[in-house]
Amino acid sequence: MITVDEALEKLFTLVAPLESEEVPLAEAVGRVLACDLAARRDQPPFAASAMDGYGVREDEAQPGARLKVIGEAAAGHGFDGVVNPGQAVRIFTGAPLPAGASRVIIQEDVSRSGDQITLNDNLDPKPHIRPKGCDFGVGEVMGAPRVLRPADIALLASMNNATVPVTRRPVVALISTGDELVMPGETPGPDQIIASNTFGLKALLEGLGARARILPIARDNIPSLETAFGLAAGADLVVTIGGASVGDHDLVGQVAGQMGMDRAFYKVAMRPGKPLMAGRMSGAAMVGLPGNPVSAMVCGQVFLAPMIRAMLGLGAQRSSRLTARLAAPLPQNGPREHYMRARLTPEGLVAETRQDSSLLSVLAEADALLVRPVNDPARAVGDKVEYLDF
Amino acid sequence: MITVDEALEKLFTLVAPLESEEVPLAEAVGRVLACDLAARRDQPPFAASAMDGYGVREDEAQPGARLKVIGEAAAGHGFDGVVNPGQAVRIFTGAPLPAGASRVIIQEDVSRSGDQITLNDNLDPKPHIRPKGCDFGVGEVMGAPRVLRPADIALLASMNNATVPVTRRPVVALISTGDELVMPGETPGPDQIIASNTFGLKALLEGLGARARILPIARDNIPSLETAFGLAAGADLVVTIGGASVGDHDLVGQVAGQMGMDRAFYKVAMRPGKPLMAGRMSGAAMVGLPGNPVSAMVCGQVFLAPMIRAMLGLGAQRSSRLTARLAAPLPQNGPREHYMRARLTPEGLVAETRQDSSLLSVLAEADALLVRPVNDPARAVGDKVEYLDF
Repeated sequence: MITVDEALEKLFTLVAPLESEEVPLAEAVGRVLACDLAARRDQPPFAASAMDGYGVREDEAQPGARLKVIGEAAAGHGFDGVVNPGQAVRIFTGAPLPAGASRVIIQEDVSRSGDQITLNDNLDPKPHIRPKGCDFGVGEVMGAPRVLRPADIALLASMNNATVPVTRRPVVALISTGDELVMPGETPGPDQIIASNTFGLKALLEGLGARARILPIARDNIPSLETAFGLAAGADLVVTIGGASVGDHDLVGQVAGQMGMDRAFYKVAMRPGKPLMAGRMSGAAMVGLPGNPVSAMVCGQVFLAPMIRAMLGLGAQRSSRLTARLAAPLPQNGPREHYMRARLTPEGLVAETRQDSSLLSVLAEADALLVRPVNDPARAVGDKVEYLDF
Repeated sequence: MITVDEALEKLFTLVAPLESEEVPLAEAVGRVLACDLAARRDQPPFAASAMDGYGVREDEAQPGARLKVIGEAAAGHGFDGVVNPGQAVRIFTGAPLPAGASRVIIQEDVSRSGDQITLNDNLDPKPHIRPKGCDFGVGEVMGAPRVLRPADIALLASMNNATVPVTRRPVVALISTGDELVMPGETPGPDQIIASNTFGLKALLEGLGARARILPIARDNIPSLETAFGLAAGADLVVTIGGASVGDHDLVGQVAGQMGMDRAFYKVAMRPGKPLMAGRMSGAAMVGLPGNPVSAMVCGQVFLAPMIRAMLGLGAQRSSRLTARLAAPLPQNGPREHYMRARLTPEGLVAETRQDSSLLSVLAEADALLVRPVNDPARAVGDKVEYLDF
C-alpha cells in the first residue's frame, strides 16, 4: 500500500492541463482563465466626474465665487467647448470632464439662479474627478490561471473582452459496476440496491468544472465491462466505481488490463477507500474507486478533485485543508490516513459517531472531512486538526 | 434615508417563495429541495456483509472451527439456502447475509481447502454485518428546504428518488441604463464605456440559483426605458442599473412610476450604493441599483442575494456574515453602513486602500466585504470585525 500523498503524485502523472477554448463572457463564470487577458482600453477612458455638480477651474473654486453655466456634460454626452475663467459646466456622474475644468463642485455646495451659480461657503475640498485610466489602463492584464468570479466577469466586460479563453472542461465518464445495481426509478430485485455513486460523483465533479457522463451500469462479467469501457471513448478521465477490490467478483482491473491499462498503483493506505486503482488507458486517465458509497465520494474529494483541478490548469496540488479545534476527543488513529465525516459546530469540529463507509445518511449530514494522519495519537478537546470542506 | 436592515425588510415584502417543479436527480445539485422527500426503501434492504469472507453462525465462530462451504452469496446474487450448523457460505461485500448466518469471518482470518474452511486462531471480533435499514428506513425523510449538495444527491439516489421537487429558479431581468454604455465587443464612442454591471450581476445571481436575462441597454429617454421594461415581462425580479440617482438624466424612477411601480423606498444609508429604489411593478419585484460598477455588485450581494434566497424558499435573512481580526487599523466610520473591499491575509483582514465605487480592478482583487456599522468608532489591529465572503 502507498500513502495518500504518494497516490496523488502518481495520479498527477496521469493527467495534464487541457487545451483552451473561447467562450462568451456571459458563460465564463466559474471557468478557468487560460491565458493572461489584457484590457483593450483605459477605464475610465477620460477624466470623469465622480458626482453630480459643476465642472469649474480649480483656481476659481472659492466660497462665494459666481460663475456662468455655459453648457452641460452628461454620461455619454460630453461638453465640446472649453471652461474659461468665470465659467462652469453642469456635469453628471460619469460624464467626461470638459477641457479647462479641473474640479467638480458637488451640486449640494452650489446655489443656482438661471445660468448663474454661486459657490457656497463650505466647499467639499475633494476634486471629485476620476483620472483617466484610474481603474485600469489599456494593456493591463488579468493573470491566468484564475477561476473567474462574478467580479472578474464585470472587470473583463469593462476591459471590453466579449469572449474569454478558458480551459476546456475535462470530460469524465462514470461507470458503476455490479450485478446488484439498478438505476434510480427502477424497481430493484430482492438482492439489489440503487446506483447512487455516479449521481453523487457527477454532482461533485461538475461543481469543480468538469462535465460528467453517467454511463450504463456495467455488470460483473467481461463483455459488459468491455461495453462500458467502449462507451467511455472520448473522455479525459474514466472512473469506475466498485469491482476494484480483491473479491472473486472484481473483474474491473482484469478487463481494464486486457484493454491496455498501464496500472500505476493499486491500493492506498486510507480510510474509507482502500481499494483504489489507477492508470492510463486508450489516451485517458483511468481511476477505479471503491464501491462503498461513502468511500467513492471521499475518494472523489481526495483524488478526483485535485486531478480535475490539474486538468483545468490550476496546478497539481492536493485539496486545500482548513484547520479547526476539536469539540470532542478522538482515539488514536491506525496505519491508514482516515477521512472522518464530521460536523462544524460553534464549539468546534465533531466527528460523527458512525463512520461506516456504507452510510450515505451520515455523509449527507457532514460538512467536513476530518483528516487523521497515519498513526495520529489520541486527540483531546481543543486540539487543532485539519479538515476538508465538504 | 433608511438603514440597510430596514431596506432589506422592505425588500422581503416584495417577494415570496416560488412554486416547485420536478427535475431529474442528475440536474438537482445546487437546487433547493422544495418539500420533504421520503426514502422509498430501506438501505440496505437486507442485512448485508460489510466485507469479503464467509458467513457463519455466531456460535460456531470459534478459533479452529472447521466448516463446510455450501454456497456463495455475492452482491446482487444472494444464497437461497440456510446456513446450518457446521456450514458456511462464501460471501462478498454488499451481498445479502444468508438465513442462518449471523456473522461474517473476513477471508484473511480463514484457511480454505476445497470446500472446507478452518477459522484462524485470532478472529476479528466484529460481526461485519450491516443491519437492514442501518443507513435509512423506508419513509425516512430528507427535510426541506435544503440546498442540495453532492452527498445529498447520492443519498436521494440511494432512496430511489429519480426526480426531485425543487423550487423553481427565480428569473431576473437585468437592464443597464445610460447613453454612455455599449455592450462588450462593440466599439465605444469617445464619451462611452462598456456595460459591465449586467455581466457581473448575471454571474453573481446565477451562482445563487437564479436565471438571469441580460436585456438590451436602455437609453436615457422615456421610450427606450419603456421598451426595456416591456422586455422584462415574465421575470420575477426586474433589476435596473444606473439612472436611479437624483441627476437630471435619471429617468428610471419616473418611467417605472408611470408604468405602475408602487415605490417601497428610495435611498439607503450605505456605502457604496446610496441610490437604491425598490417596489412592485406588473407582478414582479423591481429594484433600481446605482450605476457605479462596485456599487451595483455590492448591492447585488447585500440586497439581491437575500431576495433570491427568499424566493427560493430559504427564508428572509440577510447574507450571513463571518468574523475576522483586522490586520490594519481603520478610521471612524460615518453615518452610512460601509461595505469596504478587503482581502483576507494570513495576518487578518485588510481593507483595500482605494475604495472608490468605480474601481472594478479593486473589487476583483477583494475576497471580502468588510462591514462597518453606522458611526463605528476607529478600529485597531486585532479588533474583531464582520465581513461578507465575496
